Amino acid sequence: MTESANRALLPAGLRDMLPPDAEFEASVVHSLMSLFARHGYDRVKPPLIEFEESLLDGAGGGTSSQTFRVMDPMSQKMMGLRADMTPQVDRIAATRLGAQPRPLRLSYAGQVLRVKGSQLRPERQFGQAGIELIGSDAATADAEVLVMTAEALIDQGVPGVSADLALPTLVPAVFAAYSIVGETAERLRAALDHKDSAMVAALGGAAAPLLQALIAAAGPAGRALAELRALDLPPAAAAERERLGRVVELAAADLPSLTLTVDPVENRGFEYHTGLSFTLFARNIGAELGRGGRYQGGGEPATGATLFMDSVLAALPGPKPAKRLFVPAGTPRAWAQAFRAQGWVTVSGLDPAADPLVEARRQGCRHRLGSDGIVDVELG
Amino acid sequence: MTESANRALLPAGLRDMLPPDAEFEASVVHSLMSLFARHGYDRVKPPLIEFEESLLDGAGGGTSSQTFRVMDPMSQKMMGLRADMTPQVDRIAATRLGAQPRPLRLSYAGQVLRVKGSQLRPERQFGQAGIELIGSDAATADAEVLVMTAEALIDQGVPGVSADLALPTLVPAVFAAYSIVGETAERLRAALDHKDSAMVAALGGAAAPLLQALIAAAGPAGRALAELRALDLPPAAAAERERLGRVVELAAADLPSLTLTVDPVENRGFEYHTGLSFTLFARNIGAELGRGGRYQGGGEPATGATLFMDSVLAALPGPKPAKRLFVPAGTPRAWAQAFRAQGWVTVSGLDPAADPLVEARRQGCRHRLGSDGIVDVELG
Repeated sequence: MTESANRALLPAGLRDMLPPDAEFEASVVHSLMSLFARHGYDRVKPPLIEFEESLLDGAGGGTSSQTFRVMDPMSQKMMGLRADMTPQVDRIAATRLGAQPRPLRLSYAGQVLRVKGSQLRPERQFGQAGIELIGSDAATADAEVLVMTAEALIDQGVPGVSADLALPTLVPAVFAAYSIVGETAERLRAALDHKDSAMVAALGGAAAPLLQALIAAAGPAGRALAELRALDLPPAAAAERERLGRVVELAAADLPSLTLTVDPVENRGFEYHTGLSFTLFARNIGAELGRGGRYQGGGEPATGATLFMDSVLAALPGPKPAKRLFVPAGTPRAWAQAFRAQGWVTVSGLDPAADPLVEARRQGCRHRLGSDGIVDVELG
Repeated sequence: MTESANRALLPAGLRDMLPPDAEFEASVVHSLMSLFARHGYDRVKPPLIEFEESLLDGAGGGTSSQTFRVMDPMSQKMMGLRADMTPQVDRIAATRLGAQPRPLRLSYAGQVLRVKGSQLRPERQFGQAGIELIGSDAATADAEVLVMTAEALIDQGVPGVSADLALPTLVPAVFAAYSIVGETAERLRAALDHKDSAMVAALGGAAAPLLQALIAAAGPAGRALAELRALDLPPAAAAERERLGRVVELAAADLPSLTLTVDPVENRGFEYHTGLSFTLFARNIGAELGRGGRYQGGGEPATGATLFMDSVLAALPGPKPAKRLFVPAGTPRAWAQAFRAQGWVTVSGLDPAADPLVEARRQGCRHRLGSDGIVDVELG
């Protein structure tokens, strides 16, 4: 390996973003955050690193095995590099902003680092951009978060945005009503995860018909809701179904172009969620673009969602190339400034003796400033 | 300490940025990066963490004692958390963008972490935003970087922007011409750092009058240049003086509002610089807002500058408060959308039964949407 290739080697799952991708990512994040701000979500910015005990408290505990640790030489305590920003925002809401009126709307964007990538997401560093709506248990709050994040993706130009709705407390409510516990509960949960209806029939006892009906109900939101409404659910599960119906109704009214599906038995990735949750997808890529849902934030009802910038960018058509104008050395500064104000990117020549045409080509400018104004340049 | 206060405790030098500061910082970074982009600087985004050996190579070596290390469980090699983005951008220019035509203009913005804060900068995490202009040795390149970063600060509203120019190779050239080496050189260097003219006279031998004249020349650029021009400098130092004169002339023509001073013997903080360098200040704060200068980037002549976002924000008047409009629950979505398009921040009510006036006040909205349009709200 040459010295240069050696210097360029990065750890697996980490990378340099080059032009024009780095600028494109920044512009998409800026645009998403501006949309959130226009809806009254105020930005917070927690540090990249904080004490392990606060970082991995509560919902943060789920990322413990994914968190890099370093010793703080000042306090001699362990610190963690955040693997998820949500628990940090939750911490800010509960502490520094604990006295602010509710509902509290917060937004955030930043980088997270993970010890290992997964098969689905090999990246060990990626950007998150998200929102939290804290202090309201209303279905209108669930709908606001779902609609706004889906709309943000649609506005960016993501094709075929869909949301898969889940009710992670539904199956536990059925298990509780039918006293399904211990190993049976675990094996049933695994069978439900694999949508294995035959195994559910074998293990489910009196609850089997209901659980099989829940598996079969998965699909487009309208049909899924109709099937769920025909079922005799225990009260806690019926309340969740009620909320689901209300959120589907609100989302369909507010954002008719959003495709909604429901998977009543899904709970993977929603281990810390306490109510209606969702995953966002695009037509053109398999990876999830974001996820969100209801949780208990420091004793308060809360809901929120996070977009994963690597997937969002993969789902988008690339950036438009900039209009680059070569400005020869010695051009009065005010001229270049006037063209920049019109939306041009100006690339200044540094050597008065250089041939402007040759320089313009070298610098990838399709236009150059001549003595009579803008001249086209054939890049050849 | 209560549990909540405990959770809120962050390591020294790290902090949560709250509304409206976090949004303000993001908007200033966006605005700076947009300016750089309009001048043809293409953004790159290196990872937060990379192998220690590449991170601390060359100019990066200066931050070694300030760099947090973690073990990479995948490669079993040590990685470092960046304490400075400049060496990373330099690495990208030399490797991944090594075949791109020169001059190469790159920009970057991101967070850096340091093991310990200093007295001047107690923060252990802060944002950098900067530019690199790689592959040109021209004085026009030095002037472009100086003028653009100073102009970026002026555009943001920083009051009384000034640049203190340094020539870190000037004193070494004089030392070489007068064969000043070893301990004498070290003691003289320290005396120059303290502007201790008497000590310079005692130690400097034949070079003493020249070195004392260099100390005395520090001050406004016009006078400093006149005094430097009267000196009989060795050839390498005379070439640096020549460049200084040219850059001062170009900067004065392009940005007359920028105050320029020169300190011919300054070299602290410019250990890796190989030519004209500068530090940016504002009238209203003592800390430096940014610094830059000429260096050898992977064997190429290069110049660049970095702005420190914590100091930049401290020098700026705060953000303007947003125009917040309370929109009661059940308001048709298109109405709220129309107000957002006019620049309003809309805050939606979640509970149809709530009193809109009470809710608007609670949410800090000075306006609410009534049945006949916008109604003022006294926040009281």
